[in-house]
Amino acid sequence: MSKVRVNFFCVSLDGFGAGTDQSLQHPLGLGAESLHQWALGTRTFQKILFGNEGGSTGIDDEFVVRSFENLGAWIMGRNMFGPIRGSWPDENWKGWWGANPPYHSPVFVLTNHPRAPQSMEGGTTFNFVTDGIHVALERALAAANGKDVRILGGASTIRQYLQARLIDEMHLCVAPTLLGQGEPLFAGLDLVKLGYSVKQQRPSEAVLHVIITKN
Amino acid sequence: MSKVRVNFFCVSLDGFGAGTDQSLQHPLGLGAESLHQWALGTRTFQKILFGNEGGSTGIDDEFVVRSFENLGAWIMGRNMFGPIRGSWPDENWKGWWGANPPYHSPVFVLTNHPRAPQSMEGGTTFNFVTDGIHVALERALAAANGKDVRILGGASTIRQYLQARLIDEMHLCVAPTLLGQGEPLFAGLDLVKLGYSVKQQRPSEAVLHVIITKN
Repeated sequence: MSKVRVNFFCVSLDGFGAGTDQSLQHPLGLGAESLHQWALGTRTFQKILFGNEGGSTGIDDEFVVRSFENLGAWIMGRNMFGPIRGSWPDENWKGWWGANPPYHSPVFVLTNHPRAPQSMEGGTTFNFVTDGIHVALERALAAANGKDVRILGGASTIRQYLQARLIDEMHLCVAPTLLGQGEPLFAGLDLVKLGYSVKQQRPSEAVLHVIITKN
Repeated sequence: MSKVRVNFFCVSLDGFGAGTDQSLQHPLGLGAESLHQWALGTRTFQKILFGNEGGSTGIDDEFVVRSFENLGAWIMGRNMFGPIRGSWPDENWKGWWGANPPYHSPVFVLTNHPRAPQSMEGGTTFNFVTDGIHVALERALAAANGKDVRILGGASTIRQYLQARLIDEMHLCVAPTLLGQGEPLFAGLDLVKLGYSVKQQRPSEAVLHVIITKN
């Protein structure tokens, strides 16, 4: 059966999943690059994102490997897709990931502003969903055809799906960094009351990895 | 020169330093025992708190050892001292720690309600300070006589001292547990703006230890 998963969503010590002032230069907001530093050097990340050989193995790489396994569709918030706000001025913006994004299957982008689907090289299609998180998930599950659906982010998108108890498993990483301001993941979210608990913990030298599951 | 320190203040993944509903049965609030589980089994904790021989060594124990080193005075909030709220009905409550508390030097308890100092066995004196955090720290520094002052907690007390930039060094641990509700450490506190940053990270199998210092 399909699972709805979050993989390597990272927060700072002070609980932020992204910084403020997202821009072309700072896709994750100011200072937030430090959240994902641990993943950049792994063998899998280097290969998938940059086509490089080499890189580190070990716990961090294991979590990156798992984050790409058995996925049939993806969901992301509109701010994760790009820095443009409001209605789409044109269809020139096609995400941060170049002509061949690393998704290779349908991606459902949550937005309030309609836009035609955008096919990319390598099997990725960006579908723009204006009917809310439930419809986006239904469409993603149908497209995934038995494989898992991964909710990519950002914090606000993940919060909405957690609040609705629609996420089955979340790999969270806590990075030893402070952001001070940004997008909070946990604020006002009572995960215990929502029926989530920590199933597994695996610290690496770089970050604390945990797996949170729905009871 | 004396440093003002916090040592092993632990937060849950969702950022709580204590649970709700503190009581005689749950000194740290509901569920919050899980925050300090890692320390209980260490050799130093077993010896200092329970007089036992044995226990684990390694990273966790090193942080417990450091937490007791070179201390001349301590500060805690009134809710950490005990579960009684409002004015003191009598002087029967003398803290959670029995006749011989593990402080062995002056402890300054922040409260709005005056009370005479309470001397305990082993050199601990509980002094009740009604003049605010600055006066409590002045008195603690004077009493520490060149040694360090440790701010014990709870979250509210530490938050006030951080906001005033009066803490030099904080050992924080992130425990792989969810509380859902409780006393937040970071909410509304911009540690980057206040000039704090992460100086050191040391994950153990049980928790993520970090040292945060004032720039």
